[in-house]
Amino acid sequence: MSIELDALDAADPLRDIPDRFEPGRAGTLYFDANSIGAMPKAAAGQIARITREWRELRRSAWGASDWLDAPKRLGDKLAPVIGARAGEVVVGDSTSVNLFKALGVALRLRPGRTRIITEIASFPTDLYVAQSVVRLFPGTEIVYAPEGSDVRALIDDRAAVVYLSHVDYRSGARLDLPRITAHAHAQGAVALWDLSHSAGANRIDLAAADVDLAVGCGYKYLCGGPGAPGYMAVHSRLQAACEPLLAGWMGHADKFAFDPEYRPAAGTARHIVGTPAVYGNAIFEAALDVWGALPLQAAFEKHARLTSLLLEAIESALGEHGVAIVSPRDPQRRGGFVSVRHAAAKAIVAALDDHDVVASYRPPDVIRFGVSPLYHRYRDVGALMERLAAVVIERRWDQPKYRNAKST
Amino acid sequence: MSIELDALDAADPLRDIPDRFEPGRAGTLYFDANSIGAMPKAAAGQIARITREWRELRRSAWGASDWLDAPKRLGDKLAPVIGARAGEVVVGDSTSVNLFKALGVALRLRPGRTRIITEIASFPTDLYVAQSVVRLFPGTEIVYAPEGSDVRALIDDRAAVVYLSHVDYRSGARLDLPRITAHAHAQGAVALWDLSHSAGANRIDLAAADVDLAVGCGYKYLCGGPGAPGYMAVHSRLQAACEPLLAGWMGHADKFAFDPEYRPAAGTARHIVGTPAVYGNAIFEAALDVWGALPLQAAFEKHARLTSLLLEAIESALGEHGVAIVSPRDPQRRGGFVSVRHAAAKAIVAALDDHDVVASYRPPDVIRFGVSPLYHRYRDVGALMERLAAVVIERRWDQPKYRNAKST
Repeated sequence: MSIELDALDAADPLRDIPDRFEPGRAGTLYFDANSIGAMPKAAAGQIARITREWRELRRSAWGASDWLDAPKRLGDKLAPVIGARAGEVVVGDSTSVNLFKALGVALRLRPGRTRIITEIASFPTDLYVAQSVVRLFPGTEIVYAPEGSDVRALIDDRAAVVYLSHVDYRSGARLDLPRITAHAHAQGAVALWDLSHSAGANRIDLAAADVDLAVGCGYKYLCGGPGAPGYMAVHSRLQAACEPLLAGWMGHADKFAFDPEYRPAAGTARHIVGTPAVYGNAIFEAALDVWGALPLQAAFEKHARLTSLLLEAIESALGEHGVAIVSPRDPQRRGGFVSVRHAAAKAIVAALDDHDVVASYRPPDVIRFGVSPLYHRYRDVGALMERLAAVVIERRWDQPKYRNAKST
Repeated sequence: MSIELDALDAADPLRDIPDRFEPGRAGTLYFDANSIGAMPKAAAGQIARITREWRELRRSAWGASDWLDAPKRLGDKLAPVIGARAGEVVVGDSTSVNLFKALGVALRLRPGRTRIITEIASFPTDLYVAQSVVRLFPGTEIVYAPEGSDVRALIDDRAAVVYLSHVDYRSGARLDLPRITAHAHAQGAVALWDLSHSAGANRIDLAAADVDLAVGCGYKYLCGGPGAPGYMAVHSRLQAACEPLLAGWMGHADKFAFDPEYRPAAGTARHIVGTPAVYGNAIFEAALDVWGALPLQAAFEKHARLTSLLLEAIESALGEHGVAIVSPRDPQRRGGFVSVRHAAAKAIVAALDDHDVVASYRPPDVIRFGVSPLYHRYRDVGALMERLAAVVIERRWDQPKYRNAKST
């Protein structure tokens, strides 16, 4: 396998991109892009710049540097990665706060309708946000599609918004965003997608799919750093109709007029709320500048190939050792990570950690390997397979210290 | 004046604290603590640590390092600075988002009541947030106290919440928090304070005043860095009754159980929403560790003395040159900054910038000097006076380049 993988690396149009990221500890394999992407080397320079500006310019930096405009500027840099148009995306706040803002806006777009259609398998914070929002919109309710069912069957003329995680956070299965969006629109509903587990790994074309609203996190495949700001995208045709749910001074039409009455800024910028997180934005921007230098389509194709290779290798080498493939075989139906199942999943993840492989565990029995099209090489998949095979086949996980490991 | 100031510096119990902050450009006087406090020297080490953890540990850092617990840990470090109890404060989100969360919670505590009592002179984002919140609570309304009036006159049994900026962001006048809180309680209303312009400058005792809810920003007098996370404080007696307005996975009772149903964490922690901003928290913590090493009462006394000296000096030297004192004379009635008025305020602030003084301008005619008890020395007040006097008395501001200066 390794010779074949080396050939793939040699032919990879993105072969130089991994050099733009910090490699981490020598010999460690990080397959946790689904939790935190690697650090772009350029982030250190951004951090040093902000530190210098803070030290030397202090408040003057709000005018003299690029701090104030970051939410829009970063949004415009992010837009092509998710197929949005310039001016449709702003960066800021946590993903959960963005979900809240977007879901409230979505309900207001359909005042006569009462239902939020989602999946019970959505990421929990998405569900908690929805549970918060329905309390604020009396008469609305959440309708949960059961696991394994087709959410489209629940969408009818009572649906105000179809509110979905693009990718199942355990199985890695990716919903058919264009088709579900079209179905939502045919039923008169708004489509709101959480792209956290697909943006930066899979090709997404919000504009082509005519998606109304989208949100996501900055810290996974986009490589924006731990606790990076999230983002919110509003379709151009809706921007004028969407009053912000949560208005703050940074979303005012004239923020330094100190008007006591809120007036929304033009476009998606009205959804910016408070003072931007200056360090967080600067670090995220270092990553977005890597994205800006890429052939995007080649990146998403590489991701599909990396994940297919990994799944095929796991199945052929470990299928008889208790490891079952959970993620879909079709790369168009997969998100950013690959999931497999094993009865001892938790212990295996802990043992992998001792073998310098960072992966992640999701209860009850799922192991996730987050794959990045930016910094993973084909040969990394080969190295992962060697260590995973050793842990599973030789049952190295079968020790009390692994079985009792804590997981976060 | 300078000999007297040197003597005050020599006798200052906090005289070594300025050495814990980056001095900035040599010769520059930063009187912008009301916008951004100085950088603690220890912040660089925190930044380096997070960078190392991101590079080497990646997602493992959520378990192995202190990232996950930062909202509560920082809240506990901040609590003494504002007179809150351990467990009452959490750090995270922007100030505006915290205002939103707290105001919604406050209204829910008084379901039969309809009014948010505030001042039209509150900081604009506070007002925009209230305007957002009343749309979400049908039947509620905002009642604005006109400028210069006593807000207490508006508080009656229709008041659900008294929602006030502790300090007027233009005049620097500080409201009587204990008295207004007591009045609100006597009328059955909840008291919610925005401490952004007082926390870290003035003594605040939330516990003694029995304040229900408070929020504030991290980046002014607390020195948490540009765009630092804000915070929210909930009185212990109310914590069990306050369901979060905006629930996210980090405020769940068991966040890694991935329960589809939200269940609130104990205490104020339930108001934590999304993934913590790891860099922002680490930098803020460097500042909070300086606060933790201080005699707090001495810091607040020093602040009162610094600002009194500055006001007295301005009045005696510049009172006949068109500069009028705006801030109250009584230090107990002042917030963190000192405000003066001059017809050419905007041009003076621009000219001061050319004389290596960073101050701030608020329309139409106010100059603000933010004073820090941490890093300002008495002699800095003397140096500021010299430069300000030169600009004003010699009319150095009277040039087109200053009159047309932009302001942020």
